[in-house]
Amino acid sequence: MSWQIRIEDLEALAIGAAILGTGGGGDPYIGRVMAEAAMRENGPVTVYDVDELPDDRWVIPIAGMGAPTVLFEKVPRGTEPVAAFRRLEDHLGAVGALPCPIEAGGINSLVPLQVAAALKRPVVDADGMGRAFPELYMQTFHIFGISGTPACIASEFDDFVILDHLHDNHALEWIARGVTIRMGGHTFVSQFPMHGADVKRAAIRGTLSLGLRIGNALLRAEKGHQDRLRAICAATDFAGYGRGQILFSGKIVEVSRRTVDGFARGRVIIEGLDSHRGQSVTVEFQNENLLVRQADSVLAMVPDLITVLDSQTGLAVTTERLRYGQRVTLLVITAPAIMKSPEALQVWGPRGFGYDFDYALPNGD
Amino acid sequence: MSWQIRIEDLEALAIGAAILGTGGGGDPYIGRVMAEAAMRENGPVTVYDVDELPDDRWVIPIAGMGAPTVLFEKVPRGTEPVAAFRRLEDHLGAVGALPCPIEAGGINSLVPLQVAAALKRPVVDADGMGRAFPELYMQTFHIFGISGTPACIASEFDDFVILDHLHDNHALEWIARGVTIRMGGHTFVSQFPMHGADVKRAAIRGTLSLGLRIGNALLRAEKGHQDRLRAICAATDFAGYGRGQILFSGKIVEVSRRTVDGFARGRVIIEGLDSHRGQSVTVEFQNENLLVRQADSVLAMVPDLITVLDSQTGLAVTTERLRYGQRVTLLVITAPAIMKSPEALQVWGPRGFGYDFDYALPNGD
Repeated sequence: MSWQIRIEDLEALAIGAAILGTGGGGDPYIGRVMAEAAMRENGPVTVYDVDELPDDRWVIPIAGMGAPTVLFEKVPRGTEPVAAFRRLEDHLGAVGALPCPIEAGGINSLVPLQVAAALKRPVVDADGMGRAFPELYMQTFHIFGISGTPACIASEFDDFVILDHLHDNHALEWIARGVTIRMGGHTFVSQFPMHGADVKRAAIRGTLSLGLRIGNALLRAEKGHQDRLRAICAATDFAGYGRGQILFSGKIVEVSRRTVDGFARGRVIIEGLDSHRGQSVTVEFQNENLLVRQADSVLAMVPDLITVLDSQTGLAVTTERLRYGQRVTLLVITAPAIMKSPEALQVWGPRGFGYDFDYALPNGD
Repeated sequence: MSWQIRIEDLEALAIGAAILGTGGGGDPYIGRVMAEAAMRENGPVTVYDVDELPDDRWVIPIAGMGAPTVLFEKVPRGTEPVAAFRRLEDHLGAVGALPCPIEAGGINSLVPLQVAAALKRPVVDADGMGRAFPELYMQTFHIFGISGTPACIASEFDDFVILDHLHDNHALEWIARGVTIRMGGHTFVSQFPMHGADVKRAAIRGTLSLGLRIGNALLRAEKGHQDRLRAICAATDFAGYGRGQILFSGKIVEVSRRTVDGFARGRVIIEGLDSHRGQSVTVEFQNENLLVRQADSVLAMVPDLITVLDSQTGLAVTTERLRYGQRVTLLVITAPAIMKSPEALQVWGPRGFGYDFDYALPNGD
């Protein structure tokens, strides 16, 4: 059943998307401003469930690309997402294509809403990552054999680069990343153009709904910080995702972060407080949080969702906003089954990020 | 008046193009093989003088891009130039476009002949550099205000990237270089699509003829090495270029060369022999030879053409083939007036390559 997202929903969606963004996906605030401006002009956006999509309807996932550390300083002009979407649509001759998120996280949950509102078209309630991931081929669309090209990259100069054909989706990531770096470190990219039938077999469903649900749970929770965390944990149990678990609470005592090869890489060390006093954990990230270590053991790992929450407010802290002294709580949400097939784990399990071990279930407490 | 280039002319053209390539432009041998295969299948290629071009006829300059050091090991598949040309033609809706060189040098004098032969179309006797230069915006087409985009980059994987719109020609160089590096260091690129009227106002004319003329002079010269050098020097006095001057003769005693940021950069030191015994000069290059130094003075500089010749054969030695112990002769050819306007010298005079002095006429001997 289709439903509507209105301006009043954007706050909750931005909050939920930031939590699903697992530290990445870009600052949702910027995405919210962009979506709100478009909805103020053109009204609410209709959201299509995947089941409603006609098999032959074009769908084009659209997103920001680049290191969130750059986005933080190089604010988009605002016209890039629609421009990247329309230019690819024209290139394909894909009349009336529907926008769809590539990831369920941060700015990139909201960018397709801006495009949908601007073009007065529905958006699709699904995405290709089920969270945020740092590389373009880390999408179920890739895992199910869909080509990422043609794709179109747009910059704030109204520059357009069309990746007309690339021989595989790793080349898409490699070339698009290179262009993005040379365009200043952040761009918007339309890619993996596909038909409704492809979305039905390959997408992670219901993730816009999930983001909204998590955000609403937090906004409507009682004002105690424990109430907020409980509300978030209960809300994630939806669309195949697990119920959230609180893994650790403490204070950030070290942040190291570099922007290298177009990615924000680093780690943060958290010293325990309250029931975790005397312990410490390390979160390692590449744009997004990849895993949590404690001494010799790994407490949680990709593709499960690891999010650093502000302990007081329950809001997600993106990797570029991690600061010494912050009181934070680590939330872990197990990913749905479609994200844990052997084929999927090959792409975004620990080995997909260069770690020398296989995925195993997390130990929450 | 249009004329024809036949397979029998390709040897002379490759020899002449290598000399005009001033050390760069890629190994002409590879271009010759590619052009010869296409002409063997489809016959000779008609060459249009610029004056014959209809004002509204599309012309698309086509060339190899990347460090010659890479081309030396990563041999083209052979289908890339036609593919890059056709894909851009389709993108533009430019029916029946004519290929044209972007530079008068090395492989890039011959690539447009391959395209012309394969498509059974005439080639244009002109180019945008009048020699070889290392960067894409170093073309009279840029100096006369023509946009380099849309452009199309093709790799040996049949990958295509269309630079649909970039806000200036420096961005074209920057983005195309980035894509070329990520495609393995060498690609083929169609760019600066324009009409016949633009070619008439902006191109350096007659450079295919000049290359053929220089090559024929060398092939037909008496067998003594002094005869060969004299024949080359006399042949360059054509289409506004100066009569060639022999600047120095000696033995290479040092070569330093790095492939950095997609360019082959370095220098070669030559110790004098015969009348230059006791002296030594240094040639500095970035893909192409940029200037000749002797102690504190600069003997020759861009945009004049500086070519290292094998002293015995009179053949050009490209920068990637410079070797310790080679006996070489430095040839300098003054560039035509269109290449020395104040606007042109800003782009490719010494300051265009980071040197802190202005262009001045060379001192030959």
